Amino acid sequence: MAGTIKHLLLLKFKDDLTEDKKQQLIEGYEALPSKIDVMKGFEWGTDLSVENFHQGYTHVFISTFDSTADRDAYLSHEKHQEYAADLLANIEKVLVVDFAPRVVPIPATSS
Amino acid sequence: MAGTIKHLLLLKFKDDLTEDKKQQLIEGYEALPSKIDVMKGFEWGTDLSVENFHQGYTHVFISTFDSTADRDAYLSHEKHQEYAADLLANIEKVLVVDFAPRVVPIPATSS
Repeated sequence: MAGTIKHLLLLKFKDDLTEDKKQQLIEGYEALPSKIDVMKGFEWGTDLSVENFHQGYTHVFISTFDSTADRDAYLSHEKHQEYAADLLANIEKVLVVDFAPRVVPIPATSS
Repeated sequence: MAGTIKHLLLLKFKDDLTEDKKQQLIEGYEALPSKIDVMKGFEWGTDLSVENFHQGYTHVFISTFDSTADRDAYLSHEKHQEYAADLLANIEKVLVVDFAPRVVPIPATSS
C-alpha cells in the first residue's frame, strides 16, 4: 500500500535497567534513520500524560515510511533486526501499532 | 510547558458495538478540532501492523497541541468531556500517552 505509514512503538524498560543502558538503547533507535534509508521520519518522547491511561508504557517512538513495502523493508533490515533483538531483551513490555494516517483538516481560528 | 505536545490515544471498541456506532464515534472524534480550538492537528487510523505486538488495540488517534497548557484546556473542555464520556462507555480498553516529540533529523539520501 502506497502512502504514509506511521509505525508507533510504545515500551516500558525493565525495572533493573541502568540509565546508561536506557540511554544507549534510545541513541541506538535514533541512529537507525542514518542506517535504514526507508525511514522517512523519526520522533520519540517520554510520557507526559495526566489521565493515568498510560497502562505502564513510558516511551513512545514514531517512525514514518512511504508505504507498507518500505515498512516491511525496515522490519526485515539487518540493522533493524540487530537493534530490535537488543531492545526486546531489555524491555518489560512493548506495543506496536502501524497506521495510514487520515489527517483531519484543522479549521482556521477566527481570532 | 511550551512546545508541541502529541496526545496519543489507542483503543479497542467493545466487541458488540455496531459498525454504525463505531463510525459515529470516529466522526465525533474527527469533529472535535472544529469545536476545540487548541487542537492544532488531528490524525487517526486503524492498525496495519504485522508484528503482532498490537496488544489488542485496533485504532490510533493523535491530537497535537502547542503546549501542555493547551492539552490541559482540551482535556477539561466541555466538548471533549461530553465526547470522552460517550467514547469510554463504548470501548473495551484504552491507552493514552502524551509526549513532547524529539524530532530526529533524517539524512538526505544519496541516490
